[in-house]
Amino acid sequence: MDYSTLKYTVSDRVLTLTLNRPQQLNAFTVTMANELVHAFERASEDDAVGVVVVTGEGRAFCAGMDLSVGGNVFGLDESQQPTLEDLHKRLDDPTIIDGVRDTGGRVTLAIYDCKKPVIAAINGPAVGIGITMTLAMDIRLASEKARMGFVFGRLGIVLEACSSWFLPRIVGMAKALDWVYSADIFDAQEALVGGLVKSVHAQDELLEAAYAIARPLAQRSPVANALARRMLYRNSAYAHPLDAHRVDSLAVFYTSQGDGREGVRAFLEKRDARFTTRASSDMPSFYEDWLARDGK
Amino acid sequence: MDYSTLKYTVSDRVLTLTLNRPQQLNAFTVTMANELVHAFERASEDDAVGVVVVTGEGRAFCAGMDLSVGGNVFGLDESQQPTLEDLHKRLDDPTIIDGVRDTGGRVTLAIYDCKKPVIAAINGPAVGIGITMTLAMDIRLASEKARMGFVFGRLGIVLEACSSWFLPRIVGMAKALDWVYSADIFDAQEALVGGLVKSVHAQDELLEAAYAIARPLAQRSPVANALARRMLYRNSAYAHPLDAHRVDSLAVFYTSQGDGREGVRAFLEKRDARFTTRASSDMPSFYEDWLARDGK
Amino acid sequence: MDYSTLKYTVSDRVLTLTLNRPQQLNAFTVTMANELVHAFERASEDDAVGVVVVTGEGRAFCAGMDLSVGGNVFGLDESQQPTLEDLHKRLDDPTIIDGVRDTGGRVTLAIYDCKKPVIAAINGPAVGIGITMTLAMDIRLASEKARMGFVFGRLGIVLEACSSWFLPRIVGMAKALDWVYSADIFDAQEALVGGLVKSVHAQDELLEAAYAIARPLAQRSPVANALARRMLYRNSAYAHPLDAHRVDSLAVFYTSQGDGREGVRAFLEKRDARFTTRASSDMPSFYEDWLARDGK
Repeated sequence: MDYSTLKYTVSDRVLTLTLNRPQQLNAFTVTMANELVHAFERASEDDAVGVVVVTGEGRAFCAGMDLSVGGNVFGLDESQQPTLEDLHKRLDDPTIIDGVRDTGGRVTLAIYDCKKPVIAAINGPAVGIGITMTLAMDIRLASEKARMGFVFGRLGIVLEACSSWFLPRIVGMAKALDWVYSADIFDAQEALVGGLVKSVHAQDELLEAAYAIARPLAQRSPVANALARRMLYRNSAYAHPLDAHRVDSLAVFYTSQGDGREGVRAFLEKRDARFTTRASSDMPSFYEDWLARDGK
Repeated sequence: MDYSTLKYTVSDRVLTLTLNRPQQLNAFTVTMANELVHAFERASEDDAVGVVVVTGEGRAFCAGMDLSVGGNVFGLDESQQPTLEDLHKRLDDPTIIDGVRDTGGRVTLAIYDCKKPVIAAINGPAVGIGITMTLAMDIRLASEKARMGFVFGRLGIVLEACSSWFLPRIVGMAKALDWVYSADIFDAQEALVGGLVKSVHAQDELLEAAYAIARPLAQRSPVANALARRMLYRNSAYAHPLDAHRVDSLAVFYTSQGDGREGVRAFLEKRDARFTTRASSDMPSFYEDWLARDGK
Repeated sequence: MDYSTLKYTVSDRVLTLTLNRPQQLNAFTVTMANELVHAFERASEDDAVGVVVVTGEGRAFCAGMDLSVGGNVFGLDESQQPTLEDLHKRLDDPTIIDGVRDTGGRVTLAIYDCKKPVIAAINGPAVGIGITMTLAMDIRLASEKARMGFVFGRLGIVLEACSSWFLPRIVGMAKALDWVYSADIFDAQEALVGGLVKSVHAQDELLEAAYAIARPLAQRSPVANALARRMLYRNSAYAHPLDAHRVDSLAVFYTSQGDGREGVRAFLEKRDARFTTRASSDMPSFYEDWLARDGK
């Protein structure tokens, strides 16, 4: 599988996914969206991939939606304005996907559904969809050259890519409202103080910092990694912890019978664990049940 | 419309709403509550208003519920103790509104429903309802003289005005529990560190700081501003980002056909955008649908 | 009631609950879990207890699950792998409780249901269940010697004890993902910066710092304390503030007729209030209704 807008490189169980339109500052297109969805679905099932690192080729991470096509950048057909009910029913209808369905959201949903931890290495400007796509990633690192902005308000449009779902979870509602209203470009230091990025690095040390997090994590139990990620998102959305407890009980039970036996043995024998489960084939039936319910 | 407890002043698309009982440190009364509800409903539909700034006349922001009426300050009639079911059904029954329904909550719900961004300029003491009313506002600035406190526990009562809904969203559950249990008065610096206020200003620079945020925001698309605010609150409450994606898709589509066309053109032509939608008449049908569902 | 793994000491309306297996660094066992559940249920109904402080005997807070029993530490019976539906229905079936139901979660649910505020004084290592049990407590203080870690990933298992529900509420989703993925042991300073603990203290000043918070809180209205805690957790989980308003209206009305009358009088008379309600007998019917609904 070759991509025209991405590089997909696996080394030492870490996939580096590089946005690769450097002449256009990696500006986002429908082709890039489709290739990102494909790449995250592929990484999710590829047992050679333990962790995904996403970065940008050249001096930008992603300069946002490619506006060079002009006023019809969102691919809109004025003749078809669906109702809410219509959209809800027909979300996977090709005329909705191409004409109405938010392209950025298709990417963040694919990231959300990926079984592997995802780390963003934000190496330069990350604006509009360039920053909102990273909200579905688990850990964000920034270089000193990174510039970020939820700039939608300047264009007269609203935030997208499920960022209204992710951003308050990451930085709280007050900071989310502040950044969305201001629509300003801000630097890595403001992102760090606001809780949007975990740490800030010299430009030439950014990728190595991401790999230093990724490599040990890529050696962990793939099943436990996938479950833990989803449990944090799913369980915290319940109204009462008892519902989380039901999920925990099954998930602890399941992983304890799987990689947990080796994990405890290795701990007691003071050696590194060698986990053997595969995310492609060893997820429990309740995980599939979550996906089925959530995809309602 | 004249108010007895408020000043309502519009200049340059910014409404300044001033709590105006300076001799009583702007202490909160039922009349003030009714006038605030009226003022926010009016601002929501007034197309001359782009942004609302709320502040207090004199040296206080709002010293809390006016306790000068004595032990029956909450207007309680002991003879009528409704059941939960009773209250749920009769929330708009006049005997419930006057006797039981939380007065502060009527104000914060009106702020929540306002289509315009709201900025609190906390110029002095803001205690009890004085601080909880600001939680429904989008951005809080404080002067160095501001003093805040969730003091309900000292009076043997519980937090109100939907603050148990807003406060954890703004500062997280640990800080919310801490401030509610301590019931202490704290200063602007503690509020800043805890994430309750965006920034702290010299007393005579506070209002100008609020206007510096308000003025550019008041020139943005009124429809996009109203949608973005509601999307952050509504979408983040869903259990799964797919539900946010459905909303995003329609809202991006709708705004792209509206002010978004001008926004993209202005960006490409490197000029300021001139947005023309009106919040009073141009909200999409799905926005009205949200209000109808939420008001269940 | 004597406990074999705990000390239960009440003084001045503050219960100190001490994890008491110092030779094993207070490692967590099923017996300790059962005794903790019992102690929190007892404290909840004991009107001599206003606030609970939890700490560890000796140099540790709790070193996690006691792994000295070897590979079958989770008490698993491989022959019985229940379905999700099975577990949901049979959560209180003895074979599920002993074989599958997450032991740590039974403890955090008991803490969640306790009517009294709970303060953790983390005096040393708090790892695995040692730290996740504190997430259901309201305020966490750490000594300079505290070391914390969500180490489950190192063992090939997933986070437990409803920590996927509590942790994002306390520190936000990004920090939660970061700590869960890293599975690292971190120190008190990192916990403070990340928002996990309220403050850090010299080892010999930790308990006194906890009591300084606990003592005044233990003199407050027991009914208002219990309601406020539950309102923060329950109301913030609603999708719309109107649902919080319904709860607020009843709870403000109820407490205003109870300890609130004395609270307002004492405030106006500039004296300390003497609250007289009891958590064991004076909770409103809607509180019992919450418990019944939540325990679904």
